[in-house]
Amino acid sequence: MRLRVDFSYLGKGYCGYQKQVGKKTVQGELESVLSDFFGEKITFTASGRTDAGVSALRQVGHFDLTSNQAITLVGKEHKSWQSLAIRINYILPEDIRILEIKPVSDDFHSRFTAKRKTYCYNFYCSKVDVPYLSQFCLWLKEKELDFGKMKSALKNIEGKHDFTAFCASNTEVEDKVREIYSADIVYNELGYYTISICGNGFLYNMVRIIVGTILDVGRGKIQVGDVKKIIDSKDRTSAGKTVSAVGLVLKDVVI
Amino acid sequence: MRLRVDFSYLGKGYCGYQKQVGKKTVQGELESVLSDFFGEKITFTASGRTDAGVSALRQVGHFDLTSNQAITLVGKEHKSWQSLAIRINYILPEDIRILEIKPVSDDFHSRFTAKRKTYCYNFYCSKVDVPYLSQFCLWLKEKELDFGKMKSALKNIEGKHDFTAFCASNTEVEDKVREIYSADIVYNELGYYTISICGNGFLYNMVRIIVGTILDVGRGKIQVGDVKKIIDSKDRTSAGKTVSAVGLVLKDVVI
Repeated sequence: MRLRVDFSYLGKGYCGYQKQVGKKTVQGELESVLSDFFGEKITFTASGRTDAGVSALRQVGHFDLTSNQAITLVGKEHKSWQSLAIRINYILPEDIRILEIKPVSDDFHSRFTAKRKTYCYNFYCSKVDVPYLSQFCLWLKEKELDFGKMKSALKNIEGKHDFTAFCASNTEVEDKVREIYSADIVYNELGYYTISICGNGFLYNMVRIIVGTILDVGRGKIQVGDVKKIIDSKDRTSAGKTVSAVGLVLKDVVI
Repeated sequence: MRLRVDFSYLGKGYCGYQKQVGKKTVQGELESVLSDFFGEKITFTASGRTDAGVSALRQVGHFDLTSNQAITLVGKEHKSWQSLAIRINYILPEDIRILEIKPVSDDFHSRFTAKRKTYCYNFYCSKVDVPYLSQFCLWLKEKELDFGKMKSALKNIEGKHDFTAFCASNTEVEDKVREIYSADIVYNELGYYTISICGNGFLYNMVRIIVGTILDVGRGKIQVGDVKKIIDSKDRTSAGKTVSAVGLVLKDVVI
């Protein structure tokens, strides 16, 4: 029996999503709690990893129950799927929450069948750091950046491209073609910016390198028209720096 | 010598702005650090108090230096006012930051001469709590509220009114007339709402009671047209509940 899990977490206290021996991770916590709850060893799969410190508003994963005992537990003890989520949340750490849990067919796979993901990246500009904003935004110790130029540059990211220039060089993935459905920037009431990027998939560090490049456009270091050239170059060194994980959040996954 | 201080803090770890014996407060930390720095006992005055847990993006305060030693220290050791801020920030706790410090005339007073303040209140709606958003937003365990009605109701708050109905009943302030210059609500990219209220001053718990009332409008418990009646009633019990401090932040003070 396969169960789909939509879940949410605050990444601050975790060494990333993916399980690592001796480290506190989101996957590690989920597998431990779910294994205890269902009385069988659970392997949890998510739509993708997030790095250390990165949060998710809505991430999607799945796991299989094989023992009759566990399947009976699901059927017997819970009137609705929502009440099952509530019971598991009761024993999960406060910074991880199951939003929804429900049975799916065996061909459902949170990673292989993910259609689109949206990441957001938050930053603010100030001579001195603003502690409230630094909770979830990158602090840039510089004057305001050119909003219009950043917006235009993001439009140049949209479409189907080989994103080799925007991928950490130590990756093993061969096919680096991804499609970006939308990329935009907004200014929020609280005084920070959010860059949102929605695509069919992302390479390692891709969002953080795109943001580093867009910030350089805002600074005037890179011209709007050069963004397409950087993509075409397939050269990691032509793009901007990989910005810190502090401003990054996985907003949504559509399967 | 009077110095104006624009400062910012994350309210989470503090029992509010105002100094209290044996408790960690923003004023207490500032006075302690500034007294050590300048070598004289400093009394720090801010434009207003904020409650336990409430943050400020930009708060304004002032203090006086009287000893020759301290005044000489300011003049001698620092080439610019910004470098003085940096030096004091170095010894302040990380969650309190001086944004700017500069000398002002003796008739400057951060409380008595404050012209306008803007507060923001953040909330989100979700069946299950989203740990990332719960860092700085109130979680409402209910379906989406009526955005248009909340927006209209906020327009009815604008103007000069006697806000007795929106003031905690245990207050000693006599004149409860305040002017609200603007009140609005926006939806943010990360999936939460911000209600922003700008006015010439606020009564005790006034923002939190206005927000409680506006949420009831969003729920359909209070009609948009009844907001003016609630103001006119001058009856605290006719308005909504005082919402939690978790979503509240002082955005700005203009002097």
